Amino acid sequence: MSKTLYILNGPNLNRLGTRQPEIYGTVTLDEIKGCCAELVSAAGLDLVFRQSNAEGELVSQVQQAADSASALIINAGAYTHTSIALHDALKLMSQPVIELHLSNPAAREVFRQTNYVAPAATASICGFGAMGYEMAVTAALKLVKI
Amino acid sequence: MSKTLYILNGPNLNRLGTRQPEIYGTVTLDEIKGCCAELVSAAGLDLVFRQSNAEGELVSQVQQAADSASALIINAGAYTHTSIALHDALKLMSQPVIELHLSNPAAREVFRQTNYVAPAATASICGFGAMGYEMAVTAALKLVKI
Amino acid sequence: MSKTLYILNGPNLNRLGTRQPEIYGTVTLDEIKGCCAELVSAAGLDLVFRQSNAEGELVSQVQQAADSASALIINAGAYTHTSIALHDALKLMSQPVIELHLSNPAAREVFRQTNYVAPAATASICGFGAMGYEMAVTAALKLVKI
Amino acid sequence: MSKTLYILNGPNLNRLGTRQPEIYGTVTLDEIKGCCAELVSAAGLDLVFRQSNAEGELVSQVQQAADSASALIINAGAYTHTSIALHDALKLMSQPVIELHLSNPAAREVFRQTNYVAPAATASICGFGAMGYEMAVTAALKLVKI
Amino acid sequence: MSKTLYILNGPNLNRLGTRQPEIYGTVTLDEIKGCCAELVSAAGLDLVFRQSNAEGELVSQVQQAADSASALIINAGAYTHTSIALHDALKLMSQPVIELHLSNPAAREVFRQTNYVAPAATASICGFGAMGYEMAVTAALKLVKI
Amino acid sequence: MSKTLYILNGPNLNRLGTRQPEIYGTVTLDEIKGCCAELVSAAGLDLVFRQSNAEGELVSQVQQAADSASALIINAGAYTHTSIALHDALKLMSQPVIELHLSNPAAREVFRQTNYVAPAATASICGFGAMGYEMAVTAALKLVKI
Amino acid sequence: MSKTLYILNGPNLNRLGTRQPEIYGTVTLDEIKGCCAELVSAAGLDLVFRQSNAEGELVSQVQQAADSASALIINAGAYTHTSIALHDALKLMSQPVIELHLSNPAAREVFRQTNYVAPAATASICGFGAMGYEMAVTAALKLVKI
Amino acid sequence: MSKTLYILNGPNLNRLGTRQPEIYGTVTLDEIKGCCAELVSAAGLDLVFRQSNAEGELVSQVQQAADSASALIINAGAYTHTSIALHDALKLMSQPVIELHLSNPAAREVFRQTNYVAPAATASICGFGAMGYEMAVTAALKLVKI
Amino acid sequence: MSKTLYILNGPNLNRLGTRQPEIYGTVTLDEIKGCCAELVSAAGLDLVFRQSNAEGELVSQVQQAADSASALIINAGAYTHTSIALHDALKLMSQPVIELHLSNPAAREVFRQTNYVAPAATASICGFGAMGYEMAVTAALKLVKI
Amino acid sequence: MSKTLYILNGPNLNRLGTRQPEIYGTVTLDEIKGCCAELVSAAGLDLVFRQSNAEGELVSQVQQAADSASALIINAGAYTHTSIALHDALKLMSQPVIELHLSNPAAREVFRQTNYVAPAATASICGFGAMGYEMAVTAALKLVKI
Amino acid sequence: MSKTLYILNGPNLNRLGTRQPEIYGTVTLDEIKGCCAELVSAAGLDLVFRQSNAEGELVSQVQQAADSASALIINAGAYTHTSIALHDALKLMSQPVIELHLSNPAAREVFRQTNYVAPAATASICGFGAMGYEMAVTAALKLVKI
Amino acid sequence: MSKTLYILNGPNLNRLGTRQPEIYGTVTLDEIKGCCAELVSAAGLDLVFRQSNAEGELVSQVQQAADSASALIINAGAYTHTSIALHDALKLMSQPVIELHLSNPAAREVFRQTNYVAPAATASICGFGAMGYEMAVTAALKLVKI
Repeated sequence: MSKTLYILNGPNLNRLGTRQPEIYGTVTLDEIKGCCAELVSAAGLDLVFRQSNAEGELVSQVQQAADSASALIINAGAYTHTSIALHDALKLMSQPVIELHLSNPAAREVFRQTNYVAPAATASICGFGAMGYEMAVTAALKLVKI
Repeated sequence: MSKTLYILNGPNLNRLGTRQPEIYGTVTLDEIKGCCAELVSAAGLDLVFRQSNAEGELVSQVQQAADSASALIINAGAYTHTSIALHDALKLMSQPVIELHLSNPAAREVFRQTNYVAPAATASICGFGAMGYEMAVTAALKLVKI
Repeated sequence: MSKTLYILNGPNLNRLGTRQPEIYGTVTLDEIKGCCAELVSAAGLDLVFRQSNAEGELVSQVQQAADSASALIINAGAYTHTSIALHDALKLMSQPVIELHLSNPAAREVFRQTNYVAPAATASICGFGAMGYEMAVTAALKLVKI
Repeated sequence: MSKTLYILNGPNLNRLGTRQPEIYGTVTLDEIKGCCAELVSAAGLDLVFRQSNAEGELVSQVQQAADSASALIINAGAYTHTSIALHDALKLMSQPVIELHLSNPAAREVFRQTNYVAPAATASICGFGAMGYEMAVTAALKLVKI
Repeated sequence: MSKTLYILNGPNLNRLGTRQPEIYGTVTLDEIKGCCAELVSAAGLDLVFRQSNAEGELVSQVQQAADSASALIINAGAYTHTSIALHDALKLMSQPVIELHLSNPAAREVFRQTNYVAPAATASICGFGAMGYEMAVTAALKLVKI
Repeated sequence: MSKTLYILNGPNLNRLGTRQPEIYGTVTLDEIKGCCAELVSAAGLDLVFRQSNAEGELVSQVQQAADSASALIINAGAYTHTSIALHDALKLMSQPVIELHLSNPAAREVFRQTNYVAPAATASICGFGAMGYEMAVTAALKLVKI
Repeated sequence: MSKTLYILNGPNLNRLGTRQPEIYGTVTLDEIKGCCAELVSAAGLDLVFRQSNAEGELVSQVQQAADSASALIINAGAYTHTSIALHDALKLMSQPVIELHLSNPAAREVFRQTNYVAPAATASICGFGAMGYEMAVTAALKLVKI
Repeated sequence: MSKTLYILNGPNLNRLGTRQPEIYGTVTLDEIKGCCAELVSAAGLDLVFRQSNAEGELVSQVQQAADSASALIINAGAYTHTSIALHDALKLMSQPVIELHLSNPAAREVFRQTNYVAPAATASICGFGAMGYEMAVTAALKLVKI
Repeated sequence: MSKTLYILNGPNLNRLGTRQPEIYGTVTLDEIKGCCAELVSAAGLDLVFRQSNAEGELVSQVQQAADSASALIINAGAYTHTSIALHDALKLMSQPVIELHLSNPAAREVFRQTNYVAPAATASICGFGAMGYEMAVTAALKLVKI
Repeated sequence: MSKTLYILNGPNLNRLGTRQPEIYGTVTLDEIKGCCAELVSAAGLDLVFRQSNAEGELVSQVQQAADSASALIINAGAYTHTSIALHDALKLMSQPVIELHLSNPAAREVFRQTNYVAPAATASICGFGAMGYEMAVTAALKLVKI
Repeated sequence: MSKTLYILNGPNLNRLGTRQPEIYGTVTLDEIKGCCAELVSAAGLDLVFRQSNAEGELVSQVQQAADSASALIINAGAYTHTSIALHDALKLMSQPVIELHLSNPAAREVFRQTNYVAPAATASICGFGAMGYEMAVTAALKLVKI
Repeated sequence: MSKTLYILNGPNLNRLGTRQPEIYGTVTLDEIKGCCAELVSAAGLDLVFRQSNAEGELVSQVQQAADSASALIINAGAYTHTSIALHDALKLMSQPVIELHLSNPAAREVFRQTNYVAPAATASICGFGAMGYEMAVTAALKLVKI
């Protein structure tokens, strides 16, 4: 039976590459997905890679990950700072959860200092831009092998 | 014309029975629905019993309850603590609104101390586990008869 | 050996029925006691039903309940919001503790948002008026039978 | 190529005219839409006028506005006070963004003092009731002509 | 039927005259009582003048005043800053309530800035020492005559 | 008898046009006055248009408006954030009060988030620059006709 | 050489009698002045009785009182809550300073809980309406005789 | 004339030995009293050793200690964190006051970080369990001999 | 064309020399003015030296300084802590602004820790008493020469 | 193998005896060391007694104590209130840790109310001056014997 | 000319492997250093790898890194939460700075939520245990190659 | 016997001239030392001029200054905002202490608003850049001559 890695992306990440490219770079979410798919498939796992602007949909996807994923990588975008529902869903998981951010939220607005994802995550990676996805996948594959 | 009781359930409650059973017990939301249906039908009312992970959907359902329910029982889960939209929708109702929680939020994290449902509710019942649904239905039926 | 249910009432509750009847209704504490006594005796238990304006007396009564009650229902009135001594006494109990309020404190003054009873309680019932006593007794009797 | 004005309306605004008419008046959202449509079409622009109870849907619509609108008028309702996702989507826009409220939130509950829309808006209009839509459209048309 | 003026004194006021005389003067509570009795009796009223160190006892006395006093003067001492129970009891009164302090709490510790008596009082007099009792009685007699 | 519209301007607004023109534009307060006068006179009303750097003077002018104005438009500048005296004066008015700001204070310093004018205003307009005066006058004239 | 009593009144008190008469009564400031003048002259002192809407003017008048008054009674209105300049001026005085309020600020808005006059005053009288002036003058005359 | 050492114990301390013995040990308050009595009598002093659940009673006992004790040791239990009345009473004493706690409150709930006893005490001893009484008595006897 | 140095002094500074001389010394503001005038005239500049108790007047004078001063030295007294209007006026200046205080506010009341002048100043000098004026003038003259 | 007691002293304690002798007495740290050495050696243990002004050095010494001490007494001085590094080092210890202060910090500045040592300590002794060292050593020796 | 990677480790990290191994694992800092050295040398760079318990020493080492490092990886331990000096030193660097933590501070004490390193860092990695060093080195080498 | 002036410099000041020269200028700490040495020697005093990145070292140097300096000038850099140990050491001094900052911290980050040096200083000079050293030395020499 094959194993599955979940990568979930929150609101506005579908705009990656066009949104403030001087900050976030010109890489699109599709290109990131392609790069992650290669790494995951080379390790013999399946990849579920999704983006949604809706909090409830992300909650449902985390619930699915809790049922069938080997590990979860989540870039929850702005819901990181407001969603206790997401926090509760992540708490359902016994598998590794890696929090991911493209930028370094510590250098941003005060309202981004509240974080409901981090206390429900195993680990986190911030500020490496698109390279962070590659780092997270590589780390997740190692954690899964253990 | 028959009367209707609404019971709305928020995010992650579809996981009841499998989520941390040592805390929440092994009763599922379907079993709770069955038990409520019996009580409501014995009293000659209709039951609308729903669960959703999406804030906007819950808002819409409360609006429907405002149109056609005799009373509303709501276990808003994590949205209890973050949704002013739900608060505003509940304020539309002139019928009795009973807030319900399986556990006792007063003994939990600080961020669960913010509550936007309670100030828009007539009454609340917390910490009785699944039995709380039965208590809420019984009380709602009495309030409706008045 | 018979079992005992404790119902303790805090400051100003001796004024029930005369104090702001437009809010609290015209039922007196004596009438409530009568109704509770019936329910409790029908279940074959003894009832201890007391009211006191003094914080220390309530602490002592909770200590007695810790020695000999099957369960405790407590409407601590204004001491809910200031008494850590009551909190400590309630923590002595291993039996079920049900917090009770006639009105819904969530819709009242800011200084009523601090609550030292709730974190030491098993469950709570708010805003059902005098009917809340009946609900609490019924629930307590079920919890005791378990 | 014709130009488009977006008007987005958040949760519970579909209840306008029936919700607390003594406060909000008896004008419905459909009547407001009709009035805006006339003004916009007289100026030779297209109008996109939507309402949604769902945060994620509003985020998606703002993203569409960022792609194709000449200007955006947004009455985000309760999401004004809780949605950082909406804030981020609005930040995607280089076009004028006008924040709109029927009532004057400064005279309401403390939790309505938090505002994630205003810091991402060009300007705001509050407290003029339905007339505010007309004012916002007129101002937006002027800003677009510049 | 004669009318009654209540004067209630809280914790540590039985020490007046011996406690920090350089601040509070050498007048004792008995001497104050004598002076008040004269003024009250000259106006043809009865006087109830009491001191207690117990919060619950003061609550009970305020309840008695609510039943039978024409007006209440209360120097609640330290309970001013902590007793919501006293606040609730004072709220039972429809008669005039005058808050009294010997010293000026505004120039004292931060924890004396919280005040539960003032929001339940009609008026207050602070910082005139023993003369404040005389002022309060004179004012109360005028208010009663209205 | 003719009707009068009051427009009051607070501290530093006499510098408009020369103060940070890249932010506030090059329009001067005199030019704004001219434009408002035309609109007001066309509607058959009188205009009182004043600027003062002194809090007390503005308080006195609001008192005069309370006596004789049909409506008041007030751009209180920095006193918006510090003057409870202005707040109290505005509370004297039963006529419509429109708060006006050239820029969008929501995007500025934390100390500009305190606002004593808004809770005493009927409505507010922010961030439209000099055009905001025109919008406010137009809206005030409509409100007055009602 | 004759002695002088200063009575200073802050912003909006010139509107007394016309401003919210259901709260403040129908007595005007002129009538109060007349009543105070009688009491003061009967005691053989001179009276200085002034009102100003301007903070700086009140500061200057307190400075004059520091030079030549036997005692100062000050109803600083809204400046009570915002003026450190007034606080500093009051600190110049070694004579008795009596703070006066018509209403009871403890039962009003949160921003009226900050008080810069009280810590610089000898004593205070709140909530007795116009009668408070009479009480303050009587008390001041006693303090001056000591 | 013999000298007297006061040891006062607050709410719930009468339960020592039976309350959570895994934390507080199995020593009872009577055994502690015996041990203290020996030490005190060996030093030629009298011992007053009391426990009360009532705040007002403890205030009265501190007042008696202020009259006749050589020194006071006080374990105020939960009143440590809420009683300004006790604080005021302790401030009456010019003799040494030693604050005592069985456990280390610094490692407990946030609401135990507020302390009204410590600022009125000469010194404090926490976390040594029953041995702390012996240490406090020994230290008090030394301080008294000075 | 000659250059001008502005020195502005806020509320209560006209009392220098007589106000708490044990703290502020016996030097008067006139003597300080004399000393500053000598230094300034020796450097070939003109001096504008003013004092006002009124916030609005100080705002106007800062506006004049923005028009014609080479540099501004401002001791805003208590307005330092409350005046955003002064802050805005100082922001109009592109010339050097030196904040000056006779005493060291850091060692004073909490309400003096808020400072609206400092963030709009180039530099500040505190706690040197009257000598601070001489230091500020000397420094200003150097900055002007650059 | 002999056992060792560690006594560590933080910044400025090398100045004991010369620093504010009216508060801290005239005993020097060397004299305290002598007294402790006698008690420890009489009990057959070795003493390590050190003082350092450097946070990092104290961290290293606590680490050494974690390796080889029977118990640790620490007077961390000002680092008590700022050093999380010291907190972490103390958490390495499974041996008894006694926090010691010469004075009673509860009666001092607000910034001394933050305490990172206490939550990592077994017990604490404050306000007994130099006698506290003797008390701490005696208690530590008893704890070690257990 | 060869390039250099700096890895700095803060207080208590010298205890790695022995300190709470159930949390931090049994890998020592020396083993981590060995693993990093291999990766760095394989990439043709030099490694500077240091640990210090002293804040000042870490500041000096960051200054050296600012002079000669290609990139800096810093696990500042407890100084992360208290050292503004470290923050200032990190701000000197124009090279990439990667913040590293073994555990996930978001799930720990409140006082670990303050972070002075993150706002001065390019990116951060938390919660991967010793594997985080390998990830940080790999990422740093990629950033340096760019 | 000659007198000595101490000038102490905190963390990162050794980088002056190279650190953000567009803000701090290109003057180095060595050049500043040279300039100060001239002024001090011309006045017949000795100069001790030191810089350290270590908090404990600065504490020790302040202690030496307390023993032998005529006055102390201290630019504590980032320790200004975090070091209570430095605060305590400065409190040992009876000589004049002048706080010095190159920039104006009032216009910087919130965490630089906490200041432990200022309350222990006689006076302070901020925002004059390197010229501030010259001003401080000149003022210190005057204070010493007094």
